[in-house]
Amino acid sequence: MTTIKLHPRLDNGMQDYPEVAGFAGGTLMCFCESDKVTVKVGSQTLHNHACGCSQCWKPEDAKFSLVAVASRETVEVVSNEDKLAIVDETAAIQRHYCKDCGAHMYGRIENKDHAFYGLDFIHTELSAEKGWSAPKFAAFVSSVIETGTPVANMGNVRKELSNMGLPTYDTLSPELMDLIAAKAAELKGTLQV
Amino acid sequence: MTTIKLHPRLDNGMQDYPEVAGFAGGTLMCFCESDKVTVKVGSQTLHNHACGCSQCWKPEDAKFSLVAVASRETVEVVSNEDKLAIVDETAAIQRHYCKDCGAHMYGRIENKDHAFYGLDFIHTELSAEKGWSAPKFAAFVSSVIETGTPVANMGNVRKELSNMGLPTYDTLSPELMDLIAAKAAELKGTLQV
Repeated sequence: MTTIKLHPRLDNGMQDYPEVAGFAGGTLMCFCESDKVTVKVGSQTLHNHACGCSQCWKPEDAKFSLVAVASRETVEVVSNEDKLAIVDETAAIQRHYCKDCGAHMYGRIENKDHAFYGLDFIHTELSAEKGWSAPKFAAFVSSVIETGTPVANMGNVRKELSNMGLPTYDTLSPELMDLIAAKAAELKGTLQV
Repeated sequence: MTTIKLHPRLDNGMQDYPEVAGFAGGTLMCFCESDKVTVKVGSQTLHNHACGCSQCWKPEDAKFSLVAVASRETVEVVSNEDKLAIVDETAAIQRHYCKDCGAHMYGRIENKDHAFYGLDFIHTELSAEKGWSAPKFAAFVSSVIETGTPVANMGNVRKELSNMGLPTYDTLSPELMDLIAAKAAELKGTLQV
């Protein structure tokens, strides 16, 4: 048990993430009682992580979002697509949310020069299936200050996350940051592999 | 000795940084053989760190810059101020450099809403005095990919920095990132201390 509420799916520890080898995806459902938006994801997710940024969707009172990626070819809206809208069309990640319940169903990058083009951002807590990839790190941790976490609590926030096996970063993980820098270098013509 | 060239003042280890308690500052000098720009810094520096970003000034062939801050009230151009110009007036940090030799003498933030307003960014390697604060971490490490470090070398770059006692971040240190987030929260009215 964490002593600080981070996210309902983290606060009991990683037991809520029984990652299954060979897991092949599932269906994300919005919170509406009827006419649910459903999105089929035909693959396991990658890079699942806790995110402290203010744009990623999270349950009320959670400090962190839990967000992972899947290849956009494997992500398909199956029902009630007409209930979806984009939070901010100018953002790098276009977050498609249900206008009725507010759940973010998937985030998509349309800029082909973005390092993460081709990957959709999804919240596997919207799926009833068990076996999705478990969170592996915490990103944009300092940003939770902007959403009201007291500065004095930050030591404990980082400690709780570390204790459950999630290294903490105030940006993305080194692996992902290297990918972003490599894409920037590629575009500038300075990339060395 | 590092096996990768990081910066001339790091490659022999921290022996080149004999930090002295009570050290009260010194004089930065540009590289010109005559009519040197000199800048007096009347205090010890804080937050000295290696920086991998592409904007901080660094010696030729160095992967990282070494940069620290001092209160702007303690930083004063003493001679040949007319040789100084600003690299980019639109950047958050206005870097004042010597037009003749290229050395960056100090970086200043003029935006009073910036978290680091009041602190000037300086390179103490431009001073002959010994005793300045030693580097304590490495920032914007992934960014060295953009300036030509091969992606395949990044594991070793992070390892070398860690081995010399510099924790590596792909942004600033958690302490500084919390300050930036707190300033953003203050401006948004969401700050809790």
